[in-house]
Amino acid sequence: MTEEKLKALIREIADFPKKGILFKDITPLLENGAAFQSCIVLLADRIKALKPTKLVGIESRGFIFAAALSHYLKLGLVLARKTGKLPSKTFKQTYQLEYGTDEIEIHVDSLSKKDSVVIIDDVLATGGTALGAVSLCNQSGAKVLGILSLIELEFLNGRKVLASVPVYSLFKY
Amino acid sequence: MTEEKLKALIREIADFPKKGILFKDITPLLENGAAFQSCIVLLADRIKALKPTKLVGIESRGFIFAAALSHYLKLGLVLARKTGKLPSKTFKQTYQLEYGTDEIEIHVDSLSKKDSVVIIDDVLATGGTALGAVSLCNQSGAKVLGILSLIELEFLNGRKVLASVPVYSLFKY
Repeated sequence: MTEEKLKALIREIADFPKKGILFKDITPLLENGAAFQSCIVLLADRIKALKPTKLVGIESRGFIFAAALSHYLKLGLVLARKTGKLPSKTFKQTYQLEYGTDEIEIHVDSLSKKDSVVIIDDVLATGGTALGAVSLCNQSGAKVLGILSLIELEFLNGRKVLASVPVYSLFKY
Repeated sequence: MTEEKLKALIREIADFPKKGILFKDITPLLENGAAFQSCIVLLADRIKALKPTKLVGIESRGFIFAAALSHYLKLGLVLARKTGKLPSKTFKQTYQLEYGTDEIEIHVDSLSKKDSVVIIDDVLATGGTALGAVSLCNQSGAKVLGILSLIELEFLNGRKVLASVPVYSLFKY
């Protein structure tokens, strides 16, 4: 399936989660088996050459792409979760939201200096969450090779916030 | 990797999320690329013969297995999410937790009468969440062929609650 056809499966929904936001709904794309296949292949193509040792998926829609890619590329999958959900000892990182802050964690034993990773999420918006995940990987001693995102909302300048970390994305708005 | 070796990668953590609970931590299994590969193949083997038209993943760890399996089996993936997270019109279902209730949703246009699905989660415990997901699929007109779970906590009798729906699981406790 072409990138154009795939992008057409992303549905825009007005005023979700709040008034004035045009939400990108990826569920029609996921529900189409052939589209999901193409999507994972295209995403994999963007990061294969980086030769990561593991992939890091950001909760919760990031898990979808990170899991399928981990399986496809035969890599281990590390979970970056909302605070309080990982049961063992964690690194924690607060990050900026549009209003206020939030916190994500990874287990302290998930990554080491030997690892070089790609961080995966569904949407790159302001870059706050991705930057939080980069910091967690750095705390673990791992090298971050890049951020991979299905969708990039370019008008929110996430790339700028992530400055030193390469951003790979499939669909730009 | 043998099932025994895979099971040994599931780490037990005492008193999480609260005192008295021996939590099954699947993160070491996910982080091991070879283990995650074997796991997905073994899970796929359990449901392939059912010939589902789509897979339904329960948020959020269910997304991990559902996404990798959807890609592996070339099927569409439907998301069953915590309430308020899906942007379009949804079916909603309240389900029983140990204390109190919770609610999950799927989009009304995700499934139809033509679909027969397998519902996927990481852990089958009391069966409350899985039963909620079954009800959502039924509201959509879809047939539920079974519940597939990485882990089954047999002492919590989830299978009994799910009565008429076949349960497939990899690791029993």
